[in-house]
Amino acid sequence: MRTDRLAELLSPWLVGGPAYAGVAAGVRGLALDGRLVVGSRLPSERQLAAALGRSRTTVTAAYDVLRAEGYLHSAAGAGSRVLLPSSAPVRPDADPGEPAVVEDLTVAAAPAPAQLLDAVAGATADLRPLLAGYGLHPFGLPALRTAVAVHLTRRGLGTAPEQVLVTNGALAGWDLLLRTVTRPGQRALVEQPTYPAALDAVAANHLRPVALPVSADGWELPVAAAEIALLTPDGQNPTGLLADDAQRRALLAALDAPVVVADETFTELVLDGGPRTPMAALDRRVVTLGSMSKAYWSGLRVGWVRADPPLLARLAQVRGTIDLSSPVLEQLVAARLLAVADEVLADRVAWLRASRDALLTALAERLPDWRVVRPQAGAVLWARLPGYSSTRLAAHALDLGLRVTPGPRFTVDGTADRRLRLPLSVPPDRADEVALLLAAAQERTVAGADTRRIPARWTA
Amino acid sequence: MRTDRLAELLSPWLVGGPAYAGVAAGVRGLALDGRLVVGSRLPSERQLAAALGRSRTTVTAAYDVLRAEGYLHSAAGAGSRVLLPSSAPVRPDADPGEPAVVEDLTVAAAPAPAQLLDAVAGATADLRPLLAGYGLHPFGLPALRTAVAVHLTRRGLGTAPEQVLVTNGALAGWDLLLRTVTRPGQRALVEQPTYPAALDAVAANHLRPVALPVSADGWELPVAAAEIALLTPDGQNPTGLLADDAQRRALLAALDAPVVVADETFTELVLDGGPRTPMAALDRRVVTLGSMSKAYWSGLRVGWVRADPPLLARLAQVRGTIDLSSPVLEQLVAARLLAVADEVLADRVAWLRASRDALLTALAERLPDWRVVRPQAGAVLWARLPGYSSTRLAAHALDLGLRVTPGPRFTVDGTADRRLRLPLSVPPDRADEVALLLAAAQERTVAGADTRRIPARWTA
Repeated sequence: MRTDRLAELLSPWLVGGPAYAGVAAGVRGLALDGRLVVGSRLPSERQLAAALGRSRTTVTAAYDVLRAEGYLHSAAGAGSRVLLPSSAPVRPDADPGEPAVVEDLTVAAAPAPAQLLDAVAGATADLRPLLAGYGLHPFGLPALRTAVAVHLTRRGLGTAPEQVLVTNGALAGWDLLLRTVTRPGQRALVEQPTYPAALDAVAANHLRPVALPVSADGWELPVAAAEIALLTPDGQNPTGLLADDAQRRALLAALDAPVVVADETFTELVLDGGPRTPMAALDRRVVTLGSMSKAYWSGLRVGWVRADPPLLARLAQVRGTIDLSSPVLEQLVAARLLAVADEVLADRVAWLRASRDALLTALAERLPDWRVVRPQAGAVLWARLPGYSSTRLAAHALDLGLRVTPGPRFTVDGTADRRLRLPLSVPPDRADEVALLLAAAQERTVAGADTRRIPARWTA
Repeated sequence: MRTDRLAELLSPWLVGGPAYAGVAAGVRGLALDGRLVVGSRLPSERQLAAALGRSRTTVTAAYDVLRAEGYLHSAAGAGSRVLLPSSAPVRPDADPGEPAVVEDLTVAAAPAPAQLLDAVAGATADLRPLLAGYGLHPFGLPALRTAVAVHLTRRGLGTAPEQVLVTNGALAGWDLLLRTVTRPGQRALVEQPTYPAALDAVAANHLRPVALPVSADGWELPVAAAEIALLTPDGQNPTGLLADDAQRRALLAALDAPVVVADETFTELVLDGGPRTPMAALDRRVVTLGSMSKAYWSGLRVGWVRADPPLLARLAQVRGTIDLSSPVLEQLVAARLLAVADEVLADRVAWLRASRDALLTALAERLPDWRVVRPQAGAVLWARLPGYSSTRLAAHALDLGLRVTPGPRFTVDGTADRRLRLPLSVPPDRADEVALLLAAAQERTVAGADTRRIPARWTA
């Protein structure tokens, strides 16, 4: 990151409290939310001090704090590089046995469904006849390809098993598509806001992201051409919008991209109204991504790409350069779960509706000046804060034991700092507690309080 | 691929038999072994005919055959693109229930060990307390990180759980390292020959491969600098060499690369002599890759990266752009298998020794003019053919129901066409049959016979 850009991102942290603590908190926040890439080099103390218009002593003290906490590694001649403390998970990762010091609101995930253990038992029986084989199925286990095809066909998207490639989740499908159909320097169109991992995959594939604005009023129509486009019309992540059929047709008509990817991770989690026409049923360019992560369990790491066989064969070949194939047992578990999908999904949707309603009520009461789009589908909501930085709020929230992802992580250009995503996975009986903690974080943010304190498990 | 290069690769196919059949067989062979990338465009009939010095009718007939078989898709204005027939697995993928028309010798894999079902039963019990969590562990499940650390420490490489990142296999670790520490256009040093997927990952990451020659006499010393280097000192793939400690030290001293990757996939499969000093114990630059695929079961898709925590944190962050995390249940199975590693490995090594010895004997009897390096470790052997193309032999072998990978797939520059890799996973009682079929394929190759016939399951 360029020195002047870093200084610009740090400047909101320099209001109130000692300046060195502000610089340290800012670097910490930017490293935790991924804007400062782990391993990247920070400017020298002298350079940063000049760019901030502060004394070198201030920056030296900030770097000392960051080094002591494990956020910075300095080596003679090699400058200072950003680290995460070894005890800090890169993403929320608390183990069930671990004391929940930090309530993690950066991931919209849920515990496993009640049907999982039965599915595992069934899968164990299914596994037996497969043990004589090598266990490598580049397109996916035939049993799961068929189960996914039946599942999609039942949802109104006629699909043959030959159109299904099993992946390690929808993100893996997006990354695989980027690797297969794009070259460095080309353009990838993404919704703005969109989910951080989608943007990270675009960057990792050396592509230029092009933003397609999405607001409470819906999707703008795209104007720029791109090599590939990613849409989440069924529970837009993070806004929770559900595109109606007219909007789908208008988007597809306006899209100038040879490959249009519809991420259907949230398609089965429609909370208000019924499901819409699948994008792939409207346009032959559409490649569909699916995932078990949100509607079933993230711990499975099973998803799929639905595409025509010629593209699927290219994807399978490129998959051979990444990790060859998905695990056999996990695929059998997924096939078993899809067989009881109606039951699992009824539970999930009821649970998400209850959680959403409780969270909306709590936010309206404790944070009446926030504006929240009521999510129609999916597992997250998108809030607008009244005139202060969500990055700074996120740091204060972390001090209070809440981890949230600030708005700029969802945008191509680091805008949306007055927005915040919250997951609907907060249990209804804890919604008020979460809203109270966010209100306390807001109070500290508005007061310009210092955020030096970080929960014990965050420091090495 | 440039037209003149394609013509050059096709020319050996034009001896004997109708020319159109030779062109078709050549394209088929190049597509199956991955040198013609699926989705890439073939030259026009006129261009290819000119480059081959044949009539346009010949090329037209060849393209017609390929289209009918599903190896080519032609669209008006878009030319002809390479496909694989939808029924053809990109990699060997026969399901146990399927009639084994093709004996697959391109993958050195084995059936699951006898201990697997017990490990699954244990893992199911271990899973229960984890179901309340999200199932996302970017560094890997703590139980497996610890099991891997103990396993490596017992093998003489002192390792803490904090140094272990769980991946979907060793290839996934290599790809993740390339994505994390390199930029397009930089150099990656690889052994020559090396395994095809390692080369494919280098290409997919837009790197320039630099070849480090390996022969029956051992490793050459590297002269060129690179950003990253990959070595397989414990059962070099495909030569089966085991580097002694002096060779290891000499290689490390000569290597000018900030990151040296030691792929230890075959480390536990030493067939002659004892294990050697782990590379990472000799040099702090060494990052170790491990995998359950060869010594346990490929169907697990579990491997690991051993590196220092700062690099590991960067890898985990980049993993977040690919597929976030590995499946929980599979990791628990892997941890359970590592707990009975001694038992599993004793079986595996005994089985590989018996298979190797039977295959060496059969090859010596049926193909006395082949020269084979006796593998000291690993699960493959590397044979030198007497003066004809292994690509052509591979096509004849496929006609006879044997699938083998020809030498050029193992090299940076498409050389080694007189070499062939064979897996040691051929059961001892089938070694003679395989050698007889290879001898028949050799006979056809030497006679310049036509290879139009392809087993039924290869055509769509």
